[in-house]
Amino acid sequence: MHEAQRVNEAQRARLAMRRGEWTGTTAFKVPGFVQCNLVVLPESEAYDFLLYCQRNPKACPLVEVTDCGVPEPRLSAPGADLRTDLPRYSIFRNGIRGGDQYDICALWRDDSVGFLIGSSLTFDDALERAGVPKSEEVWVLNTDLPTVPAGRFGGRLVVAMRWMSPSQAIIATQLTSRYPFNHEAPIHVGDPAEIGADLKSPLVGDAVEGIPRGVMPVFWACGVTPQVTALLAKPELMITHAPGHGFVTDFKADQFCIP
Amino acid sequence: MHEAQRVNEAQRARLAMRRGEWTGTTAFKVPGFVQCNLVVLPESEAYDFLLYCQRNPKACPLVEVTDCGVPEPRLSAPGADLRTDLPRYSIFRNGIRGGDQYDICALWRDDSVGFLIGSSLTFDDALERAGVPKSEEVWVLNTDLPTVPAGRFGGRLVVAMRWMSPSQAIIATQLTSRYPFNHEAPIHVGDPAEIGADLKSPLVGDAVEGIPRGVMPVFWACGVTPQVTALLAKPELMITHAPGHGFVTDFKADQFCIP
Repeated sequence: MHEAQRVNEAQRARLAMRRGEWTGTTAFKVPGFVQCNLVVLPESEAYDFLLYCQRNPKACPLVEVTDCGVPEPRLSAPGADLRTDLPRYSIFRNGIRGGDQYDICALWRDDSVGFLIGSSLTFDDALERAGVPKSEEVWVLNTDLPTVPAGRFGGRLVVAMRWMSPSQAIIATQLTSRYPFNHEAPIHVGDPAEIGADLKSPLVGDAVEGIPRGVMPVFWACGVTPQVTALLAKPELMITHAPGHGFVTDFKADQFCIP
Repeated sequence: MHEAQRVNEAQRARLAMRRGEWTGTTAFKVPGFVQCNLVVLPESEAYDFLLYCQRNPKACPLVEVTDCGVPEPRLSAPGADLRTDLPRYSIFRNGIRGGDQYDICALWRDDSVGFLIGSSLTFDDALERAGVPKSEEVWVLNTDLPTVPAGRFGGRLVVAMRWMSPSQAIIATQLTSRYPFNHEAPIHVGDPAEIGADLKSPLVGDAVEGIPRGVMPVFWACGVTPQVTALLAKPELMITHAPGHGFVTDFKADQFCIP
């Protein structure tokens, strides 16, 4: 037990974030490790939010929930600290977003509960290995599909859209079906109007006037969903990762992949 | 909307249970529908138990958690009633098992929360369709493998053991990997001692003196695990399905199967 501990790439990345040396996005970084979205809520909101995640596993695939007041995700990243080990955090008070921060040491409380929710940042890498090239742009869109409510949490599903050729869409469907902790299979393919999505007014990404020839839109449940629902519920304090700035766990993506 | 509603086999089975016409086991009955184990706890225990299930998904794959005080599983069996629609219930007070009952109308409270946990009764049918014959006996065994605790809930993993030929064990591993809501892939194969299981003192099944030639033991996380952990936690009132007497949902097993 006195051997030098092996430090993996995920640990190195988290340490750089903790030291403030890494404040940028985690997209396409540290490939092969499961990345997570973060939601921190007071214990008083935790049961309803946990139930909301259980009822909406495609949007909110829970990787780990920390014990009340404990900032260490003991299962997915022993030794890590959710207060410092993400590159950037967004802070919401009563549903209103304030300025982003680079650590949340001053905001973490004895009743804070951290929810780590699998992110599609994980399967981007798997798609690329399967020959589906990196999407140059990923759009995030509102839909009119309801999520299943739990207590104060509810609202519409938010989706991430990529375009790809039909044959790539088939490969992507096969492949992402095997990642239940990373939003799993698409929820829709084809006409955005059928799920109430409007490409002219995305939440993230540039407005799209028409779908290019030869590609089709493919839609996955998106990790922005729990943020939107939590904002509707207006908790007194909610802390999340800043969009695209995920938490890198020690879990290997392929370890949680269905064969 | 005024058409006669189609009644499926699962609904017919539940109705027979509600009327007291079906009080026997559900093993190998209503094939193709997801069957669940039931745990009913007071709301005061619900957060820790929900977290326990989230942390131990192979033993406790949650299919649905009902709203507090509501006996209808609205997602998996709309119109059903958890107080009457199982053939038989076991009742535990402060960790001590009393007599079984055929309905729990008198025990259900305004603060009761129902947990429906996917059961291996579902994949028995899938195994048979894949050419792995029905196990004549299934053993339930204690192990020395810890589960991940949450609040008062913790303890050792309980496993279900079947024997099969090596080639059947491979097929069963492939197949059950695709049923994440029904205990998923085996947790062990081969020597029982490696996981601290003792075939001479099973919880369920006859004592085994030696493993027959040509077969090997295959072990799955078992739905008895949450009952054992809940008993260690000694909640004032816990209601479960009686062993082998599951709740039949409207969900089709193959709908939740990973392709």
